[in-house]
Amino acid sequence: MRDIELKELQQHAEQYADREVTVRGWVRQNRSSNRFGFIALNDGTCFSPVQIVYEAEELGNFEEIARAPLSAGILVKGRLLLTPQAKQPFEIHAEEVTIEADSAADYPLQNKRHSMEFLREIAHLRPRANTFQAVFRVRSLVAYAIHQFFQERGFVYVHTPIITGSDAEGAGEMFQLTTLDLNDLPRTEDGSIDYTKDFFGKECNLTVSGQLEAEIFALAFRNVYTFGPTFRAENSNTARHASEFWMIEPEIAFADLADDMALAEDMVKYIINYVLEHAPAEMDFFNRFIDKGLLDRLQHVAGSEFERVTYTRAVEILQSCGEKFQYPVEWGIDLQTEHERYLTETVFKKPIFVTDYPKDIKAFYMRLNDDGKTVAACDMLVPGVGEIIGGSQREERLDVLQARMKELGLSEKDYWWYLELRKYGGVKHAGYGLGFERIIMYITGMSNIRDVLPFPRTPKTAEF
Amino acid sequence: MRDIELKELQQHAEQYADREVTVRGWVRQNRSSNRFGFIALNDGTCFSPVQIVYEAEELGNFEEIARAPLSAGILVKGRLLLTPQAKQPFEIHAEEVTIEADSAADYPLQNKRHSMEFLREIAHLRPRANTFQAVFRVRSLVAYAIHQFFQERGFVYVHTPIITGSDAEGAGEMFQLTTLDLNDLPRTEDGSIDYTKDFFGKECNLTVSGQLEAEIFALAFRNVYTFGPTFRAENSNTARHASEFWMIEPEIAFADLADDMALAEDMVKYIINYVLEHAPAEMDFFNRFIDKGLLDRLQHVAGSEFERVTYTRAVEILQSCGEKFQYPVEWGIDLQTEHERYLTETVFKKPIFVTDYPKDIKAFYMRLNDDGKTVAACDMLVPGVGEIIGGSQREERLDVLQARMKELGLSEKDYWWYLELRKYGGVKHAGYGLGFERIIMYITGMSNIRDVLPFPRTPKTAEF
Repeated sequence: MRDIELKELQQHAEQYADREVTVRGWVRQNRSSNRFGFIALNDGTCFSPVQIVYEAEELGNFEEIARAPLSAGILVKGRLLLTPQAKQPFEIHAEEVTIEADSAADYPLQNKRHSMEFLREIAHLRPRANTFQAVFRVRSLVAYAIHQFFQERGFVYVHTPIITGSDAEGAGEMFQLTTLDLNDLPRTEDGSIDYTKDFFGKECNLTVSGQLEAEIFALAFRNVYTFGPTFRAENSNTARHASEFWMIEPEIAFADLADDMALAEDMVKYIINYVLEHAPAEMDFFNRFIDKGLLDRLQHVAGSEFERVTYTRAVEILQSCGEKFQYPVEWGIDLQTEHERYLTETVFKKPIFVTDYPKDIKAFYMRLNDDGKTVAACDMLVPGVGEIIGGSQREERLDVLQARMKELGLSEKDYWWYLELRKYGGVKHAGYGLGFERIIMYITGMSNIRDVLPFPRTPKTAEF
Repeated sequence: MRDIELKELQQHAEQYADREVTVRGWVRQNRSSNRFGFIALNDGTCFSPVQIVYEAEELGNFEEIARAPLSAGILVKGRLLLTPQAKQPFEIHAEEVTIEADSAADYPLQNKRHSMEFLREIAHLRPRANTFQAVFRVRSLVAYAIHQFFQERGFVYVHTPIITGSDAEGAGEMFQLTTLDLNDLPRTEDGSIDYTKDFFGKECNLTVSGQLEAEIFALAFRNVYTFGPTFRAENSNTARHASEFWMIEPEIAFADLADDMALAEDMVKYIINYVLEHAPAEMDFFNRFIDKGLLDRLQHVAGSEFERVTYTRAVEILQSCGEKFQYPVEWGIDLQTEHERYLTETVFKKPIFVTDYPKDIKAFYMRLNDDGKTVAACDMLVPGVGEIIGGSQREERLDVLQARMKELGLSEKDYWWYLELRKYGGVKHAGYGLGFERIIMYITGMSNIRDVLPFPRTPKTAEF
């Protein structure tokens, strides 16, 4: 008899009432007297375990099962009984229990409180812990919600390259990759490293953003998005930064900054609603044990109309609000997290877009506004976190772009194809970037990026 | 008035009949007399362009529009007229046409036949060409079909790491990544490179497979899959190999090789059906211009029950079939593409799984069969291509795995966590790998992997 996944039983318990079922899973708890026992069984398909009741009278191997250790893999044949009075809606009365995979007594993930630091050291086992069962299922669901959101709207998913021959965007420090033998580097006549001998015939790095390539596709398919890993070699050990993380970068043609913000707002609400619908048990867990008030906050966000405020107006608000900030506010500064959170939490009490930043604190490709000093950029700020999305309308005017690049000392040669996009039907277009781990942290309430990444990579850490 | 995407018009033309519409797109063709003209307009949301009819009587800027060059971005206001007698189901009679983004006369992608090699050189423009409009939309749809297939079945999507500190699987040559200054490498006292100074404190590489980490998650969530980029630093310039490609690796617990093959078969059929349903115009294009017979072949595959044959039986068939092969066949060899294609195309005339390969030609983690000389592995072979999927049941018996690793000289220390998975509830499990570009080639009939990757990375090539 084929075994049934526990999720199926939990979703359709009535259908299986009083019927014989076969299930498999891992022992999450096992306690017994000398006459009967209870196993909390989980097969990983759903958050809550299923209770298995077993009795000495019924099982020939009762004593073996009573000793079945934490995390042993077992097979259970038994009858499903509805238990409307009990906490769990049903239990399975075992007629046969078999240990299919034993577990050693030194199993490190015992049922007690472990520090997050310890759990990171056993990243091969922590996905079995409640918190990480919840985190990584939600992570998977959010990834799918994002694909579904864009695909339902006809967006084309594009795999922008991971290996790149240019440090085009200059968004951060990069990892160099090579197949040269570092102990015997080939040299040119003048003594410098001969990269023509390297795998790609030149210096190559890991990408920091797929945006510039996404623009190529937006100018062919109108609406596109990327969803892939990106890398930063910054030596900063914070709870919000990882060296390897995933990013989503939609890019839309025939679109301006207002279209861009509307898309970002729709996407965030879509993700929240999707997760609340598809992971109620996990979200309830986060709300109770990780971040009290999480559900209220998310529901509030999903139901709010996000505010739009210009950077200039935001600066005025911050200057006149009477609040003392660690970093003083004046026009031209980059907003700090304290400013961002004050705006979204105290002033507007909901998510906001801050728009039209000074050009000097933003990237070269952002579209210059008519005032000549700000660009059509937007950051989405959300209560509890601060910035979660950064976007802009792109500079589509070839001459303006060239002038800006000259100002910044960027070489036209390095960007030849990016400039050509402006020569051949370069219609107005816009896009934004969403850090995937940031939104997972926001939605789960987890406070360290290392705990929403399956195998985090940070300075001096690349285990597993 | 907000513009309407052309896909929306194509899907619901009747609803818009005789109504005023505003559309935007790029000129794909423009021909005119001195009284009227026709523009084939495409906005990238659908494969077929929409015909715009414009007249001198109607447009004040008729002459400007008559000169509108290829790839110019335009806005059209006009009336949609159904044209049931014509080739296209409707056309738009322009009342106003505005050029929003001009295109220079030296636009390289003129409407004529270009070689695939030339198109690769203009990878920033080729997504606008018919072939690549079809390829990259299908690529996006297949990616989504894969996510949908697994998510509908409750699989958890896991992002296995791209940067890895181990060359665990030994599946291929790797790219090393570093932030050390190659011109000034830090040295230890004995003169070797001091990798403790490198970003991660040790030598790191780009992943060749996420399988081993996927096993971690399968033993926590039962059913999981990866979908991410993988890398091979092999210096081989073939039409089937790229240095950066995407791979899908499902891993299922409480499952054996038969379950694994059933999943792979279901997935391939699901993908084919999804694409046939969601990209009929693109698939028709491939069938007519890229690979005649493609649709028949795919429909046949979607409707077939895939055959299963052991390696040993396959070798007997190949030896006794009377066919002359370039590589002679005997038990123990790795099957070559010529053998694979003969089996699937000539002998079975449908997709097959070849199972139970000699252990000596397969990876260390594959489960040893009771005969002691074969392993529970499977390759899916399909007509027209050969191998497209490779999978296996994993060795879950700690002692057998240790013995096999010893045979191969693999260090237990390097695999400490992989071995621990077998100590703590290591139930039977299985999985497979699907090269994403391989299945795109299979489904589109495109014969070079460089033409199904947005920006291919191959030896000496990392442009864009």
